[in-house]
Amino acid sequence: MTTADYERNMILSNVDYKVIGTRPVRHDGADKVTGRAIYGADFDASGLLHGKILRSPHAHARIVSIDTSKAEALEGVKAVATTADFPQKDGNKWLRDNILASDKALYAGHAIAGVAAASPHVAEEALALIEVKYEVLEPVLTTQEAMAEGAPILHEGLTTQELGEDSGVVSNTANHFQHVKGDIGKGFKDADVIVEREYDTKTVHQGYIEPHSGTALWGPDGRLHVWCSNQGSFVVRDSLADLLDMPVSKIRVTPTEIGGGFGGKIPIYVEPVAAILSKKTGAPVKIVMSRKETFEGSGPTPGSNIKIKLGAKSDGTITAAHAWMAMEAGAYPGSPVGAAAQCVFSTYDIENALIDGYDVVVNKPKTAAYRAPGAPNAAFGMEQAMNELAGKLGMDQIDLRLKNVAVEGTRRPDGPVFRRIGAKEVLEAMRDHPHYQTTKPDGHGRGVAIGFWFNIGFDSACNIAVNSDGSINLTEGSTDIGGSRTSIAMHAAEVLGIPVEDVRPSVVDTDTIGFTAVTGGSRTTFATGWAAYEAAQDVRTQSIERAATIWDVNPDSLDMEDGVISSKTDSELKMTFKELASQMSDTGGGITGRAAVNPKGVGGSFAGNIVDVSIDGETGKVTVERFTCVQDVGKAIHPSYVEGQMQGGSVQGIGWALNEEYFMNDQGNMANSSLLDYRMPTSLDLPMIDTVIVEVANTGHPFGVRGVGEANIIPPTPAIANAVSDATGNIMTQLPLTPGAVLESGK
Amino acid sequence: MTTADYERNMILSNVDYKVIGTRPVRHDGADKVTGRAIYGADFDASGLLHGKILRSPHAHARIVSIDTSKAEALEGVKAVATTADFPQKDGNKWLRDNILASDKALYAGHAIAGVAAASPHVAEEALALIEVKYEVLEPVLTTQEAMAEGAPILHEGLTTQELGEDSGVVSNTANHFQHVKGDIGKGFKDADVIVEREYDTKTVHQGYIEPHSGTALWGPDGRLHVWCSNQGSFVVRDSLADLLDMPVSKIRVTPTEIGGGFGGKIPIYVEPVAAILSKKTGAPVKIVMSRKETFEGSGPTPGSNIKIKLGAKSDGTITAAHAWMAMEAGAYPGSPVGAAAQCVFSTYDIENALIDGYDVVVNKPKTAAYRAPGAPNAAFGMEQAMNELAGKLGMDQIDLRLKNVAVEGTRRPDGPVFRRIGAKEVLEAMRDHPHYQTTKPDGHGRGVAIGFWFNIGFDSACNIAVNSDGSINLTEGSTDIGGSRTSIAMHAAEVLGIPVEDVRPSVVDTDTIGFTAVTGGSRTTFATGWAAYEAAQDVRTQSIERAATIWDVNPDSLDMEDGVISSKTDSELKMTFKELASQMSDTGGGITGRAAVNPKGVGGSFAGNIVDVSIDGETGKVTVERFTCVQDVGKAIHPSYVEGQMQGGSVQGIGWALNEEYFMNDQGNMANSSLLDYRMPTSLDLPMIDTVIVEVANTGHPFGVRGVGEANIIPPTPAIANAVSDATGNIMTQLPLTPGAVLESGK
Repeated sequence: MTTADYERNMILSNVDYKVIGTRPVRHDGADKVTGRAIYGADFDASGLLHGKILRSPHAHARIVSIDTSKAEALEGVKAVATTADFPQKDGNKWLRDNILASDKALYAGHAIAGVAAASPHVAEEALALIEVKYEVLEPVLTTQEAMAEGAPILHEGLTTQELGEDSGVVSNTANHFQHVKGDIGKGFKDADVIVEREYDTKTVHQGYIEPHSGTALWGPDGRLHVWCSNQGSFVVRDSLADLLDMPVSKIRVTPTEIGGGFGGKIPIYVEPVAAILSKKTGAPVKIVMSRKETFEGSGPTPGSNIKIKLGAKSDGTITAAHAWMAMEAGAYPGSPVGAAAQCVFSTYDIENALIDGYDVVVNKPKTAAYRAPGAPNAAFGMEQAMNELAGKLGMDQIDLRLKNVAVEGTRRPDGPVFRRIGAKEVLEAMRDHPHYQTTKPDGHGRGVAIGFWFNIGFDSACNIAVNSDGSINLTEGSTDIGGSRTSIAMHAAEVLGIPVEDVRPSVVDTDTIGFTAVTGGSRTTFATGWAAYEAAQDVRTQSIERAATIWDVNPDSLDMEDGVISSKTDSELKMTFKELASQMSDTGGGITGRAAVNPKGVGGSFAGNIVDVSIDGETGKVTVERFTCVQDVGKAIHPSYVEGQMQGGSVQGIGWALNEEYFMNDQGNMANSSLLDYRMPTSLDLPMIDTVIVEVANTGHPFGVRGVGEANIIPPTPAIANAVSDATGNIMTQLPLTPGAVLESGK
Repeated sequence: MTTADYERNMILSNVDYKVIGTRPVRHDGADKVTGRAIYGADFDASGLLHGKILRSPHAHARIVSIDTSKAEALEGVKAVATTADFPQKDGNKWLRDNILASDKALYAGHAIAGVAAASPHVAEEALALIEVKYEVLEPVLTTQEAMAEGAPILHEGLTTQELGEDSGVVSNTANHFQHVKGDIGKGFKDADVIVEREYDTKTVHQGYIEPHSGTALWGPDGRLHVWCSNQGSFVVRDSLADLLDMPVSKIRVTPTEIGGGFGGKIPIYVEPVAAILSKKTGAPVKIVMSRKETFEGSGPTPGSNIKIKLGAKSDGTITAAHAWMAMEAGAYPGSPVGAAAQCVFSTYDIENALIDGYDVVVNKPKTAAYRAPGAPNAAFGMEQAMNELAGKLGMDQIDLRLKNVAVEGTRRPDGPVFRRIGAKEVLEAMRDHPHYQTTKPDGHGRGVAIGFWFNIGFDSACNIAVNSDGSINLTEGSTDIGGSRTSIAMHAAEVLGIPVEDVRPSVVDTDTIGFTAVTGGSRTTFATGWAAYEAAQDVRTQSIERAATIWDVNPDSLDMEDGVISSKTDSELKMTFKELASQMSDTGGGITGRAAVNPKGVGGSFAGNIVDVSIDGETGKVTVERFTCVQDVGKAIHPSYVEGQMQGGSVQGIGWALNEEYFMNDQGNMANSSLLDYRMPTSLDLPMIDTVIVEVANTGHPFGVRGVGEANIIPPTPAIANAVSDATGNIMTQLPLTPGAVLESGK
């Protein structure tokens, strides 16, 4: 699509759509509610072997030796894999070591070796026969510990990147970067009021229902086929290609259905081990994690230590802002502090801002993405600081935000200038909402907060084939986590003027569709939907041309609207898409469409919450009494799924706010690695999550779509903290807001 | 592809190809030789039920009643299906009745009812509990019996179509048609020599190794998913849509690998029954035929009764030819006599010709296609008559054929005028071959024969996605019976100038590719290869455009050859396809290609045999001592697979010539329905089949391809008969040439 095309086709959200904005039943619904859908662990193959993984009991230890001989000798054991089985290439040691540790175990749960056996029980038995000699070291479990003078060092070869330069200093701080806008020294000097505070958040897990699992078959022709539940089969393919030093085209990844991911199923864990074990045995090998392994051996989102300092004029204009953020990368560098830094001040138009980000390794599992990764941590600080500032200024908390809100043209401290955005519209919708306009019940606390998350573009592909009955088959490569088959199909249906029930979407494997990036970054409906839009335009163009051939007229004299091709000049010439479809074969062959896009017109999304809480005075238990989520979604393709995303993100935020944390002992062992002890909210813990969809069209997308999947998890933690503060009068600087923490907060 | 495009792109067989004409290893080879490939009966699903089919023991009977109550009551039986379970719509009664009989059983083996049960054994037990009351009728088993005055009538409502008009006469002759060219009365009057003889051939089976099988799952959303081994998943979809009165888009057919088809796996048998049983039970139902069921319940190729009369001048010029051909349709109209009539005289340029065709129903399984269906029967007569004529004229048998051979511009008696063909080149290659030039050993007989078969076009689709490593994934919908994944991939590789190992072809289901017609009619490499050619051209065009964008030059100034894009004017501008592929994402997104074609430029193929036989004087057993197969293939994309087709067709022809037949008793029961008794040739029965590929490019295809799969089965029966005649001095008018028949022939 050229810019000119795009401008020609651009349709903003006030258009009278036929399909977009409706709420059809999802195409994969029947398969899922009847249990027919195949998830990762459901996969089976003849001669299947079962793999299990030995994990380190120590959070920090040197691995002196691994002796697998007794395990290999056990009857029923077919192969054992260690990290030595991977190609020892340069550049991916950390990635490789996180799959199977080499010189050091860096967290309790770190994978050490894999076993393939005829049954999972034999494999488990064999794990106990693997003899690993550890030299146990002292662990560091928080950024504070890790950054302390004289802290135990995780990686002897890791030197700090200091503002883009290698400092040469060995430390647990992998990277320190800054974003600078204006002059905060001057800004704070100009301020009438200053607030400054430090906040801590704990490590939390995405809590997807389905643990990780994958099956690999390494063929005798040197081709690897992997079936797994993951957020992007092409990402799995790329990771495997890197780890196994193979060309991507030698690897085929078939996605199964996925039971939740939230970012945590972007990385791979068991698949490379299964691949190695399959290569050794010639048989397919399946590995399924337990819940405990999922907690201890996959990637949670980091705990963090954040300092926010804000200065403002007495009229509420923020003159300066400083964020100092250190985030746990886990065992290997790569926390989401970079994204946090891009989001922390981005709701506001602040003249002078400084953001310091620290990426710090600690003896916990390597962090992975979790819905707007980093942004909830940052907002927990920033949005509490905003409320504290409002308190000091005696301003309404929403008015203060509106006074400083970012709009089209605002430059973010990290550089980009916003195109059309909906932060103001979200805040106005919050302000005008009956929830905010209603006096809170006695004894309740009320808080608000808002958060920003960009969405990404990246590659997506789509193919369409027209059936003789006028329906179309649509093929795409995006893992469908939350209904994206249907939202993507709706794009094509709208373009062709056919009901979405006449579109059959299929998510196919990496051998049978163009490269499609991960389902994540709020990109799927945006980018793969765009690909569907383009592929449907390809079909539309050919349909008009075909009709022109049939009628022997110039294609330019024809148009296609609402599924009818007609002449602009001759009212006799009219044919439905269905009629054309039935004639395709005889008039030149079938019609198929294709598109591969990497769209640049991404549009960020803002989400805000209004939350009422009550607090049990005796126990300190916080109950969320009322919860309203407002989000600018650009254009809601399928409003029910948008609302589902808003509610889902809100609930995850509530869990994060009130209960969830990796509860670790001093040795770095997780004490609550089951869903009984790691307490995620259930429906009994929750009020109805009211949703308000705001539609400020993204001018960068043909239908005005913004990515909606993530922003909604950002405001709950500060909004709830603000509500608790409102009820107790105490500022809450630590997550989670457990009953104990609430009781303690006043002391 | 417009005609202009085609002419621009047309490359005839003398071009210096890089990939076309080489012999790469097939992409699916490892899966197949290691047993990993999934065939129809391998398919499994959770909750799978097993279906079995009750079949009529009578060749001709009225069905008075079917009582399924006892079967339904058997423990473990989940459902029973009869023809009443199908929508009783107009227009498909014969098709429906052949799946499950309604008022009459028309052959021994005719399916009556289906049972689904928890195990195949229970299902089998239940069959015995179904009570069918038959009124047994006298069967007719050959066209002679069926056409006889007063013959028992199979279909009371069937009236003969007589030269295009409904005669109103109820009979077993469904259709009598004629092709007339010139005036045979005058032609025979002008003849110096006339030969006239009657020939009979028996019913034979394709003998594919894998019996029919299929699994169906009728979802609660009303969508039907079928997994089966078939020659065309879209054909299965269309047939099911017709039988079940559903839109095609509600049906998904996933092709498994196929263990041979040869035309016999174009129709469906068990799939609709499995679908009905699945609808009734909500569970997936699998039905696998036994070998006996495959013989008795699927579609063999017909027995036939053929009269050939030829007249010629003494110089060998044929002045007139008359073919009278009656073929068994089996239980329902639709024998391949139509195709036989299009082929019988098409090797020759004959001024006066008359062809009479009779489509006759008999009490045998409904006939199905078998490699060049009808043509071997016709050639058995025609090519023996040609030898008899050569004998009478004292001419060399190849010289007589060359004297009359059809060439470009020859009009066939059925109408079409040949474009460039290779009949003459095949005959010349035969004449000049060392086999023909070498004196035959003492006591051996030598025969020659030639046959013609057209190839069809029809719809095919192909998608291509470029991988970042410069390889491509190719998706197509053609069942791969004989290596077509690779031959199709070679088209794309040639266009893009990449090794075929860099193409990964996948055969996908009906939901994920454009409509693709059956693998049959010698069309797959021709038409789906053409689609691959076009899809690769789509990729090529975009690759050039992308390079132009990167270099900021006009695309017209660039060219792409041997996998390198370069400027016609600036020698600095050069980039391999691989280099471009690695930059796709950042320069506008991925590159994908698509094509859907219905090519018209089909090119017929001629195949000829030279055969030496020895005959055991005591037993009459014929041994094929030397066998040469010559075929015009247009352009051999993958010569090994072409040779494989030539050898395979030859061997099937040898089996048909010497051993194979449905051996039936008077009641119409097959007495040899196992592969022990139905004697197909094994490698021990065969000499090496020498192959000679002749390449007379098809001017209707970009690479000059002709369909090669079928013509090779036509000449063996007459060539062997001619060889036996040469050895014995007796003309062989009946197939098979069993030892008994050979001994009898002189008497």
